[in-house]
Amino acid sequence: MKTILNLLKDKPRLYRIVAESDTPAGKTFDITVMVAIALSLIAAFIETRPTTNELLKDILTVMEYVLTVFFTIEYILRIYCYPRPKEYALSFFGIVDLLATLPLYLSLIPMLSSVRYLYIIRAFRLLRIFRVLKLFNYINEGYLLMESIRLSLRKILVYFLFVVILVVIIGTLMFIIEGNQPGSDFTDIGTSIYWAIVTLTTVGYGDITPVTAIGRFFSGVVMVLGYTIIAVPTGIVSATMIDETNRKVKGDNCPRCGKKVDKKDRYCRNCGEKL
Amino acid sequence: MKTILNLLKDKPRLYRIVAESDTPAGKTFDITVMVAIALSLIAAFIETRPTTNELLKDILTVMEYVLTVFFTIEYILRIYCYPRPKEYALSFFGIVDLLATLPLYLSLIPMLSSVRYLYIIRAFRLLRIFRVLKLFNYINEGYLLMESIRLSLRKILVYFLFVVILVVIIGTLMFIIEGNQPGSDFTDIGTSIYWAIVTLTTVGYGDITPVTAIGRFFSGVVMVLGYTIIAVPTGIVSATMIDETNRKVKGDNCPRCGKKVDKKDRYCRNCGEKL
Amino acid sequence: MKTILNLLKDKPRLYRIVAESDTPAGKTFDITVMVAIALSLIAAFIETRPTTNELLKDILTVMEYVLTVFFTIEYILRIYCYPRPKEYALSFFGIVDLLATLPLYLSLIPMLSSVRYLYIIRAFRLLRIFRVLKLFNYINEGYLLMESIRLSLRKILVYFLFVVILVVIIGTLMFIIEGNQPGSDFTDIGTSIYWAIVTLTTVGYGDITPVTAIGRFFSGVVMVLGYTIIAVPTGIVSATMIDETNRKVKGDNCPRCGKKVDKKDRYCRNCGEKL
Amino acid sequence: MKTILNLLKDKPRLYRIVAESDTPAGKTFDITVMVAIALSLIAAFIETRPTTNELLKDILTVMEYVLTVFFTIEYILRIYCYPRPKEYALSFFGIVDLLATLPLYLSLIPMLSSVRYLYIIRAFRLLRIFRVLKLFNYINEGYLLMESIRLSLRKILVYFLFVVILVVIIGTLMFIIEGNQPGSDFTDIGTSIYWAIVTLTTVGYGDITPVTAIGRFFSGVVMVLGYTIIAVPTGIVSATMIDETNRKVKGDNCPRCGKKVDKKDRYCRNCGEKL
Repeated sequence: MKTILNLLKDKPRLYRIVAESDTPAGKTFDITVMVAIALSLIAAFIETRPTTNELLKDILTVMEYVLTVFFTIEYILRIYCYPRPKEYALSFFGIVDLLATLPLYLSLIPMLSSVRYLYIIRAFRLLRIFRVLKLFNYINEGYLLMESIRLSLRKILVYFLFVVILVVIIGTLMFIIEGNQPGSDFTDIGTSIYWAIVTLTTVGYGDITPVTAIGRFFSGVVMVLGYTIIAVPTGIVSATMIDETNRKVKGDNCPRCGKKVDKKDRYCRNCGEKL
Repeated sequence: MKTILNLLKDKPRLYRIVAESDTPAGKTFDITVMVAIALSLIAAFIETRPTTNELLKDILTVMEYVLTVFFTIEYILRIYCYPRPKEYALSFFGIVDLLATLPLYLSLIPMLSSVRYLYIIRAFRLLRIFRVLKLFNYINEGYLLMESIRLSLRKILVYFLFVVILVVIIGTLMFIIEGNQPGSDFTDIGTSIYWAIVTLTTVGYGDITPVTAIGRFFSGVVMVLGYTIIAVPTGIVSATMIDETNRKVKGDNCPRCGKKVDKKDRYCRNCGEKL
Repeated sequence: MKTILNLLKDKPRLYRIVAESDTPAGKTFDITVMVAIALSLIAAFIETRPTTNELLKDILTVMEYVLTVFFTIEYILRIYCYPRPKEYALSFFGIVDLLATLPLYLSLIPMLSSVRYLYIIRAFRLLRIFRVLKLFNYINEGYLLMESIRLSLRKILVYFLFVVILVVIIGTLMFIIEGNQPGSDFTDIGTSIYWAIVTLTTVGYGDITPVTAIGRFFSGVVMVLGYTIIAVPTGIVSATMIDETNRKVKGDNCPRCGKKVDKKDRYCRNCGEKL
Repeated sequence: MKTILNLLKDKPRLYRIVAESDTPAGKTFDITVMVAIALSLIAAFIETRPTTNELLKDILTVMEYVLTVFFTIEYILRIYCYPRPKEYALSFFGIVDLLATLPLYLSLIPMLSSVRYLYIIRAFRLLRIFRVLKLFNYINEGYLLMESIRLSLRKILVYFLFVVILVVIIGTLMFIIEGNQPGSDFTDIGTSIYWAIVTLTTVGYGDITPVTAIGRFFSGVVMVLGYTIIAVPTGIVSATMIDETNRKVKGDNCPRCGKKVDKKDRYCRNCGEKL
């Protein structure tokens, strides 16, 4: 008890345990957290299975509450010992750490009982495993991946709005073609748009399928044309990725004058363009 | 009333309101239109749901007519105040604006009642949101995307004809293999071709599936071989996109002599080739 | 009759009509053939529909025989008037022209009646439309596509053997996991391999699906891992296509010494490597 | 008998027969092995079919045992005559050769009878066909493919962990949305995650599908967003492949200073970086 109180007074030491994994205590703490996360995920899997008996369900529920209290204490400790708690609280992992505890408390409010399993969002915390295992190369690859996606984001957003409009149009056309058939799956425009998304993304559940000749012909056209449309995001991501890889190896070109610039340069030596 | 009449006389001011969104009035007008479009789309969703009661349906139908009249007035105003109305009428958005109003009027003709929901084509007008929000970067990305698709178009058209012929052949082969089986899904060549499209594009509804060993073997070959064939449009779009990105950054090479040319050059400095 | 006899004697003129489409007669001939092909395809679609009445079926059957006789005469004419008939007979279109007529004759042999609709292979002849319409740019794009596929072929073949072995292994594992379950879809190894192909290519019919927890877990692993494996042919085709496009614009590099070589060069100027 | 004994004494000659295929005896041996593998695969296919009669099953079972004994002798011979038997035993093909024989022996243990068909892993041995047919170009292409995958592996692993976490979150959200509906397919979190994998990878069996409006809306969002996420491995593999191809043709750039380096260089001439 006294050790814990002493530890609470020694913020830097607490920080080394909670936030870093260089010391044995820090490593032990990190691994304990990882195991707790894994346990809570497995508990959720087993608990929701209809074949699980009531006793086991009760044990697992208790475990969930214990683990959530543990994560809550961990979250409070982080806020307490971090040098800039506000920055942490608003970072990706800060938000995940909070969302990993809140849902279970919220589920105590009768109307919100179904949000309970949202605590599974704590799975995102498993991404910290690369830091714990000191796999910094993997972290870099992760950042490169995110960078590629971030750079493609604007293109992809424009593309998404286009796809949304397209599935609305295709869904409506299909509703006009097949909707008035007896026994048709295309009961309303919403369902038809759902079908259009399922078809254009090549998921193809088959829960809603055309039955008339004209409906099948139109579906075929949508699939073949759609395949090209859906090829676009792959093209976007590929192009960005190749660009990024080239930039990493060969350095960059100035976007204004086209002259080669160093990776560390902040302004083009030739034309002064900000990089 | 008098304000409206005055406004109708002042064409340039009307143009600034209807076509631009720099003035407060123009911005208000644009946002009103966007909201009206969103409302009419939601109305169509709700109205076609089988669970919607008759009263709500009637209200939504009235709303549709009101909104369509509003869009019709807007279209007439645009034709009236645009400096070059003909050019507008034939542009992409001019045609969409017209198609956004016509179907409801056409649906009054008894035989064409089913075309009614085609007015949903007005969803395309939502693409104007980028201009309203002054997200010109997004518009540029959109043009780049369209440019990439346009440049790939010829390749893709050749590819499409090839795919169409291929699915006709594959569908017929499958009809020969499975068509004479009792209880077979492959009842005619049209259905078999529909199956071939569903399979080659990897949509895979599962409404028509082979049941004989030879039919399954042939399907497997089609899938594995088909995967390569269907990889081609992705390759085409990727290649064009990478090319376009390179051109934007590094400038271009003359297609005849291969020498570097500036982006602004209209003729190659070395060999005079038109660019 | 005499005109025809005269024409048969004048081989070069006959060649201009049958093989080229520069003269009005040649153009008329080509368009007649195209229309005949389209008609025969449509006839096959309609004839096999179960809802088609017997009279129409009989008319279409007669039409098929008439068209096939027409294509046979055309084939004989081509063999007769081409300067190098053997080369033609062994070319892609020569073989297609022959296969477009043979199946109907073969179907007269009682045992082979089901091969009848194989004459649909004549659909490939529609590829000639680009030549008839003088869309030579499209023909070039077609050759570029074929070249890209041809250059990727060796990589793709190695990849295919690998995929075949993989689906055999995955299918067997799934048969071991799910095969002995009551009511399982995985009745034998062949069916399991068919499932593995359907899953790995992301077609996903859903006619055969895992029902046990372990089977679903294994399926999930196959899908996620498989997505990367199946991404490979897209990567191969993309890489080849980008390579080809670069080569067309920038010229090539010598594969031995890496120095730039002209497109027309047959030997590297620097090291003498044959290109 | 004596010939065999002599052969067993002459290790180098035995090696030439068993491991190489330059001599007629070696080629005969290799082809015999290939045929035996093909036979055993076909036997497994036929044996597990429910329609196969008992007598044929018994014959095939005997054949399996005979072939497995043959492969066991072959494995022992390889261990016996290879100059470095340990290296062979731990190589990819060494392990495959062992796994090709073990399962049948293991299946004699009552509890492990279901592992029997695992011997199908011997299918991997068919990859040796390229060496037997001396298709070394194909082997090189295979290594290039493996190299591309190996180089992408770290990126793909990071990506996989991300996908695993994502499907856990998506599956749980869907369980919260659809799980408490009467007659819902989403009975537990495990099933929901299985659905999320089937959907995100665009396999789309359709055995589990959303039925509520909100569930379908969420599925649509997952599909459209997911398509971009799933485009990433294709982008990774494409980028690596293009990089590899460039490196093969143009030589490489030093990762530190960016100067060009020869393929054979082990250190950068300019900055001394190890390559």
